[in-house]
Amino acid sequence: MSEREEFLRVARRAREAAAGLAPLPRAAKDAALHRIADALVAAAPEIVKANESDVARARENGISEYMIDRLSLSEERIAAIADAVRKVAALPDPVGESVRGNVLPNGLELRQVRVPLGVVGIIYEGRPNVTVDAAALCLKSGNVALLRGSSSAYDSNTALVGVMQGALAGTEVPGDAVQLVPGTSRESVKHLMRARGLVDVLIPRGGASLINSVVEESTVPVIETGVGNCAVYVDADADIDMALDVLLNAKTQRPSVCNAAETFLVHADIADRFVPRALEALKGAGVTVHGDDRIRSYGEDVVEATEDDWTVEYLSLDIAARVVDSLDDAVDHIRRYGSGHTEAIVTTSQPAAKRFVALVDSAAVMVNASTRFTDGEEFGFGAEIGISTQKLHARGPMGLPELTSTKYVVTGEGHLRG
Amino acid sequence: MSEREEFLRVARRAREAAAGLAPLPRAAKDAALHRIADALVAAAPEIVKANESDVARARENGISEYMIDRLSLSEERIAAIADAVRKVAALPDPVGESVRGNVLPNGLELRQVRVPLGVVGIIYEGRPNVTVDAAALCLKSGNVALLRGSSSAYDSNTALVGVMQGALAGTEVPGDAVQLVPGTSRESVKHLMRARGLVDVLIPRGGASLINSVVEESTVPVIETGVGNCAVYVDADADIDMALDVLLNAKTQRPSVCNAAETFLVHADIADRFVPRALEALKGAGVTVHGDDRIRSYGEDVVEATEDDWTVEYLSLDIAARVVDSLDDAVDHIRRYGSGHTEAIVTTSQPAAKRFVALVDSAAVMVNASTRFTDGEEFGFGAEIGISTQKLHARGPMGLPELTSTKYVVTGEGHLRG
Repeated sequence: MSEREEFLRVARRAREAAAGLAPLPRAAKDAALHRIADALVAAAPEIVKANESDVARARENGISEYMIDRLSLSEERIAAIADAVRKVAALPDPVGESVRGNVLPNGLELRQVRVPLGVVGIIYEGRPNVTVDAAALCLKSGNVALLRGSSSAYDSNTALVGVMQGALAGTEVPGDAVQLVPGTSRESVKHLMRARGLVDVLIPRGGASLINSVVEESTVPVIETGVGNCAVYVDADADIDMALDVLLNAKTQRPSVCNAAETFLVHADIADRFVPRALEALKGAGVTVHGDDRIRSYGEDVVEATEDDWTVEYLSLDIAARVVDSLDDAVDHIRRYGSGHTEAIVTTSQPAAKRFVALVDSAAVMVNASTRFTDGEEFGFGAEIGISTQKLHARGPMGLPELTSTKYVVTGEGHLRG
Repeated sequence: MSEREEFLRVARRAREAAAGLAPLPRAAKDAALHRIADALVAAAPEIVKANESDVARARENGISEYMIDRLSLSEERIAAIADAVRKVAALPDPVGESVRGNVLPNGLELRQVRVPLGVVGIIYEGRPNVTVDAAALCLKSGNVALLRGSSSAYDSNTALVGVMQGALAGTEVPGDAVQLVPGTSRESVKHLMRARGLVDVLIPRGGASLINSVVEESTVPVIETGVGNCAVYVDADADIDMALDVLLNAKTQRPSVCNAAETFLVHADIADRFVPRALEALKGAGVTVHGDDRIRSYGEDVVEATEDDWTVEYLSLDIAARVVDSLDDAVDHIRRYGSGHTEAIVTTSQPAAKRFVALVDSAAVMVNASTRFTDGEEFGFGAEIGISTQKLHARGPMGLPELTSTKYVVTGEGHLRG
């Protein structure tokens, strides 16, 4: 069987499983999630063993220790992954929720209710915990998960999916509700991207190049997630101590994630007071600043910013910086270079905050708060499948409701249209 | 300037206009809509003149009288189009609506508010009234409309857009908020489909081949609309008179639209009583039935159904028909051949109705009501931009809220993530 035929066989089984999974009540799905959590803990030694072969291959390929740490599973980490599955079981079931409902003037009863999307394809890099997290969120929301992880984690992912499928065998949930895309070739990703009609939505989780290639080639509808070039704007009327705290937190609390700040913009009227202290604090935290000429006039350590610095998602201890002459200039900069993820303003001026919120077109706008708060857990949604930076379907942190569609149910007594 | 350069110039102006249009309050948008309505009425004679050249060209090309009627504008029709614009002005503004809002445990105030999508591209066939309807719905929801109508209506559309742009000149709404894609070539559609970053969403309105080509080629996110292969299922426990009425209404009340029935399925237990009367009634209404062998055993006029008959959207006085042995077989037929638009069950059995609603995966499911009710006006949403048959973003009739995205606004007092 060719790889494509094998993929289609898997995708068709996923499609069939979706029909069986969609109408299941919450209790059946939660029971299956607890079975999965228990099975992961019980199978931890064999999962670790599979993971060791991925790790050994990664070492042979000279992968950095940082990446190897992301790839590695221990029995402790597997216990944490199982706990996360139990937490998903504890979340409310979005399926069946009435979003809208009323009786029309002609007596027809109209209800709009949440239903699963169907088959959700997820393409992701690196950490094998995503395999379980994504499967659990899909299952809870009544969706079949068709998973395509990094080829570097293929043995780990195969073991994890095998354990989950085994756990489903004794439940009402179809065993095919969690599946791995067969193979590790680049072609196997393409099969998934062209599986319109079998796959209802594709969620790529990873860097800009992954997202762009999926958007470019996919005929399946895509939800873009995970690229964040976030800016902190320090307004003329900012509380300088607060601005320093927010900037440092946004940049350094966890630099490798999409809601970390990659740029700061300072109003010219406050630059003399703010920039020298900011440069000192950032230097103290090990951050390299890439600034325009006006920022560079405040410090010798500032690297000259190129056009690329305004657009790049560093994911490291680097930040781009620019002095702007007005709030509107800050908005223009963000509109031109931002990725539409999260921008923050620090200001004591209510009109400035209102204008920034109105004009900035990003998934999240923070007023006097760190960009790091754009997160499903922080927003109180429970676990998230990703952070959408597109405007269609879902924008910002995506929890369980964002993994559903809706259906209109219309009930009459032989109603005819006149 | 090449056609592509000309397109990009228009699209960039659209993008800029979107930034100016998005924050406008309702009063500004409603005032602009009334100006547009007044201007259309005032300019009716010149619009009719432009339309006459389209009609003359259509006649030269031997277009059917039915299509020429769809293409034609009169002063009366223009007055009706202007009235529709005034009705859109009277609808509530979705922008700014709080979808969700609460105070997080750490004191951060979280609000999710509706915002415009930005630039909405609309590709449509035939009737020039869509040019104005779509522009009005986009404008009201704070979106710039980038319109690509049928080349057969190019002169009419150019005149209509010219009048609308002229009307905007005296308002707060940017004049570029309503624009026509330049040119009539097939290439000009492609420029629109590849304008990711400039256009936020594409809504194709038309037949299956248009929708498919847009889905296949577009890098801009697409909302599929308008293809309906709708089925009426007559259950074993149906009220036969009601079933006949619903079937006739669904098929014949307006056969050329997407929510008309194209298939009926009859439970074997009721076939002897239902099918002969259905065939007689359908024949009386001028409908050709394309049936399976079991249907054909009830009448000589029934044409033998081929595999194509189960999938085709006739949009004419034709219907496919099949006898099924169970409700689940009806669901299987719909899952295999349907377009996910609207399906109806006629039954007096509550469990049958519940099961059909749970298992049928379509945008709308009717219980004892005609498929013809799937419609924005009928559902009480006011005018609709189309009926989505996809699961992402919007499903079913799309009113003004479906033309929006959301944004999270998070307000703190220097909140940092720990």
